[in-house]
Amino acid sequence: GVLGSGDFARSLALRLVCSGFRVVVGSRNPKRKASLFPAAAEVTFQAEAVKKADVIFVAIFREHYSTLCDLADVLAGKILVDVSNNTEINHHRESNAEYLASLFPACTVVKGFNVVSAWTLQSGARDGNKQVLICSNNQEAKRTVAEIAQVMGFTPVDMGCMSSACEIENIPLRLLPAWKIPIFLALGLFLCFFTYNLIRQVIHPYIREQKNKLYKIPIEVVNTTLPCVSYVMLSLVYLPGVLAACSQLYHGTKYRRFPDWLDQWLQHRKQMGLLSFFCAALHAVYSLCLPMRRSHRYLLIETAVKQAVEKKMTIWVEEEVWRMEIYISVGIIALGLLSLLAITSLPSIANSLNWREFSFIQ
Amino acid sequence: GVLGSGDFARSLALRLVCSGFRVVVGSRNPKRKASLFPAAAEVTFQAEAVKKADVIFVAIFREHYSTLCDLADVLAGKILVDVSNNTEINHHRESNAEYLASLFPACTVVKGFNVVSAWTLQSGARDGNKQVLICSNNQEAKRTVAEIAQVMGFTPVDMGCMSSACEIENIPLRLLPAWKIPIFLALGLFLCFFTYNLIRQVIHPYIREQKNKLYKIPIEVVNTTLPCVSYVMLSLVYLPGVLAACSQLYHGTKYRRFPDWLDQWLQHRKQMGLLSFFCAALHAVYSLCLPMRRSHRYLLIETAVKQAVEKKMTIWVEEEVWRMEIYISVGIIALGLLSLLAITSLPSIANSLNWREFSFIQ
Amino acid sequence: GVLGSGDFARSLALRLVCSGFRVVVGSRNPKRKASLFPAAAEVTFQAEAVKKADVIFVAIFREHYSTLCDLADVLAGKILVDVSNNTEINHHRESNAEYLASLFPACTVVKGFNVVSAWTLQSGARDGNKQVLICSNNQEAKRTVAEIAQVMGFTPVDMGCMSSACEIENIPLRLLPAWKIPIFLALGLFLCFFTYNLIRQVIHPYIREQKNKLYKIPIEVVNTTLPCVSYVMLSLVYLPGVLAACSQLYHGTKYRRFPDWLDQWLQHRKQMGLLSFFCAALHAVYSLCLPMRRSHRYLLIETAVKQAVEKKMTIWVEEEVWRMEIYISVGIIALGLLSLLAITSLPSIANSLNWREFSFIQ
Repeated sequence: GVLGSGDFARSLALRLVCSGFRVVVGSRNPKRKASLFPAAAEVTFQAEAVKKADVIFVAIFREHYSTLCDLADVLAGKILVDVSNNTEINHHRESNAEYLASLFPACTVVKGFNVVSAWTLQSGARDGNKQVLICSNNQEAKRTVAEIAQVMGFTPVDMGCMSSACEIENIPLRLLPAWKIPIFLALGLFLCFFTYNLIRQVIHPYIREQKNKLYKIPIEVVNTTLPCVSYVMLSLVYLPGVLAACSQLYHGTKYRRFPDWLDQWLQHRKQMGLLSFFCAALHAVYSLCLPMRRSHRYLLIETAVKQAVEKKMTIWVEEEVWRMEIYISVGIIALGLLSLLAITSLPSIANSLNWREFSFIQ
Repeated sequence: GVLGSGDFARSLALRLVCSGFRVVVGSRNPKRKASLFPAAAEVTFQAEAVKKADVIFVAIFREHYSTLCDLADVLAGKILVDVSNNTEINHHRESNAEYLASLFPACTVVKGFNVVSAWTLQSGARDGNKQVLICSNNQEAKRTVAEIAQVMGFTPVDMGCMSSACEIENIPLRLLPAWKIPIFLALGLFLCFFTYNLIRQVIHPYIREQKNKLYKIPIEVVNTTLPCVSYVMLSLVYLPGVLAACSQLYHGTKYRRFPDWLDQWLQHRKQMGLLSFFCAALHAVYSLCLPMRRSHRYLLIETAVKQAVEKKMTIWVEEEVWRMEIYISVGIIALGLLSLLAITSLPSIANSLNWREFSFIQ
Repeated sequence: GVLGSGDFARSLALRLVCSGFRVVVGSRNPKRKASLFPAAAEVTFQAEAVKKADVIFVAIFREHYSTLCDLADVLAGKILVDVSNNTEINHHRESNAEYLASLFPACTVVKGFNVVSAWTLQSGARDGNKQVLICSNNQEAKRTVAEIAQVMGFTPVDMGCMSSACEIENIPLRLLPAWKIPIFLALGLFLCFFTYNLIRQVIHPYIREQKNKLYKIPIEVVNTTLPCVSYVMLSLVYLPGVLAACSQLYHGTKYRRFPDWLDQWLQHRKQMGLLSFFCAALHAVYSLCLPMRRSHRYLLIETAVKQAVEKKMTIWVEEEVWRMEIYISVGIIALGLLSLLAITSLPSIANSLNWREFSFIQ
């Protein structure tokens, strides 16, 4: 059974019908709404729909839950699936599912399907997230809903008892929260270092020697900026650990909570490390592209021609040669090590390591 | 208990014995077959084996299920594990496990272990897939079989009720079905563009100017072909979404099923995107290799020598310099963005994103 | 309830309190220990603590389990969670949890939380492993503990019945055991080939022609060494399969166990393959860096100058050109194929492939 006639209710009915379930839709105006639903779904009055179904998806807004109170008698003993989402994180004191359960104490309430979009329901689980997070205080009801999700092509994930409902309802509202600060930090650092390098490599030679070096902006200036950002980000990954240790030494205990800013910082280390790796990898690609540029070719030929005309046979500077060999060599090793760190931060790799192995690699 | 004496039955018995279970094998000719099984497994007549065991693995072909009907009385109340596979996808109307359950209504049938190969059973779960998919209508039986799988070193995965049996039986027959069309498409596109570039870069100069440019085939021609394939594949990823939107606007509803070809196309987008990324990455590596080639070195030296002999001191063309700087710069940024898309399509990353985050990144 | 006052007990109490549980700590000296625990946790005598709690975390060493025997009467019927770890793999004959269960037959023992470090408990599940492996012979008790873990922010993983306890207790002691042999092998091979190449490319020219080629050590010598290591490692991946097949042919059966050394070798194939890929990838990066070096630039210019002075207009050697084009081309294709192998060995990808697809790709 499905209660509601919004976008989600229609998509849900469509998917249930496609998966071979018999679906009955409850509406306050079944005649007008019938055309919105697939032909195989029976659209009828709410009370009648509830009577015919054992599992009822409540696809209406939290604000309208109370309108179902007239149906309390027919709903008694049924499984209610709360599929609702909020518009803000932690908007209400209690989760929608817990509120529904408090309105209908005679029903078994299961939270689920809210992490799935109406579009995914219509087109079937395809790309992105196929998981359906489910929680309930009743094991039997949870299993029934999990099996429905399985048949619909999703992967049900048991999230335990009803107290997880709040967490599940917050998931679809999340938009990479852990990445916001590190990304803005990296962009800020990039801007600072880019300006500095622009002045040093392009504007200063122009003012002092009237040399036009504008062609350096897209590659060379960016390429000297990236490792600076990468270094600073990497040091910001390891600094809070040191600060935390100092704070523990100062207070003489491990069991004191860190101040909020340090706690926040410690939580963003993984993201900062990955951004540091991303900058380092881009730096490697930019550096490798240097000999491909026309400017590199022209400068090389001009030097050769100048030498040939002046009949200077040798140009070898041992110090310069060694400096470059060591630069490149150390750079490759550093990138190789950073790659290992980046690979171990993939969820599926991290889950296969115990904390001793994880710490060892870090 | 194990019924059957084929390859799978023998490997299963071996693994069960190695995992510390007491195993009894039922055979119609126990004397002849005893030598095939590990010494620790007791080989006896079918009826006797069934009497001694609580969980019985039915390792015989679907065609021979009916030969077990004589044992119906002794089998009653036991757990039967159907480990069979088919030779074709959706060969029979009902799955083997459901067929077995219909033959022995007094038994509890569990589907499982069919996704594991005989070789994996013999050598223990090592590389590749350690998962054993299990489904049954009886929770208790499913749990028993899951615990056996766990002790044998596999990771049991609960696939819900018996209606999933058909899906589980089809899994081992699958051979990257979603990749076939995109791979042939990419190969076809590669062939077309390769021919075009071959004519343009090698055959045409040969015919018109008698210049031998054959050395360009292995790297330069391939390198100009790859980005063409990558672009076309990438546009084929985004085109069906636009067509789907047009179709929805035309029909005035979101709830109408797309035509089959569009549906197929929408389902292959992820694979086409990954192939587009693969071509782009190869193009990057090929391009980076260009300055390593002998031909590059020779052409450079010849130009320098020509300039020196003619005493032309400068060769700088500002427009050429800028064109190349911008080409490379935009190329790196595009590859960086495509890498992000490729990383988010890894299953473990995709599972940790909600659909809002997934859509944001796409 | 928490029994014990060590580091783990304190961190556990802290996390339980932070997750909203009511915590009672049992200690033999509650007055002295109370200051160690968060204020919200009640610290009292062991017998009293046990009476007040339904789920009791036993955070004391295995050696002191017997000191709890006085509490056997009050403990009866409670759920005991064994969180202990050993200091050596397979130190005792039976696992700690099974030992605890044998001491208190009237209690339900659940193994769990031992894979989590005290630090993770204090700071909340953040980076690395969020999984808590749980096993028990009692489904209801296992579910209760799993729900506690869920509320604490961890991901409970059902590991089946008590016989898995030994395996779970060994997990935190593991330090990349499968990697040790392959890594030492790769290092040994690297050393051998490095010495050989050093003699050939640096020492020999110095002795014979007094040429100083020391600058080649950091990049060129390493770069010729890496593909040798990569090749040998790759062949060591495929060799044991051939040996295994020969052994099967020789003994005339598939069901005979391989000798231990071959079995070990077969188990380390994945790690050797990944190291082979790592060396190949490093070789690719080193090779791409070659034209960036100063020495490359100087040699190029010197050749050009020499040619110009001698007025030789051409330097083109068709054979050299073709050799390099084909080297690079084949190298890129090999690296592309190795990348595919490396990607399919990621756990989340490997789990989504059936063994037919996995073998096909391999």
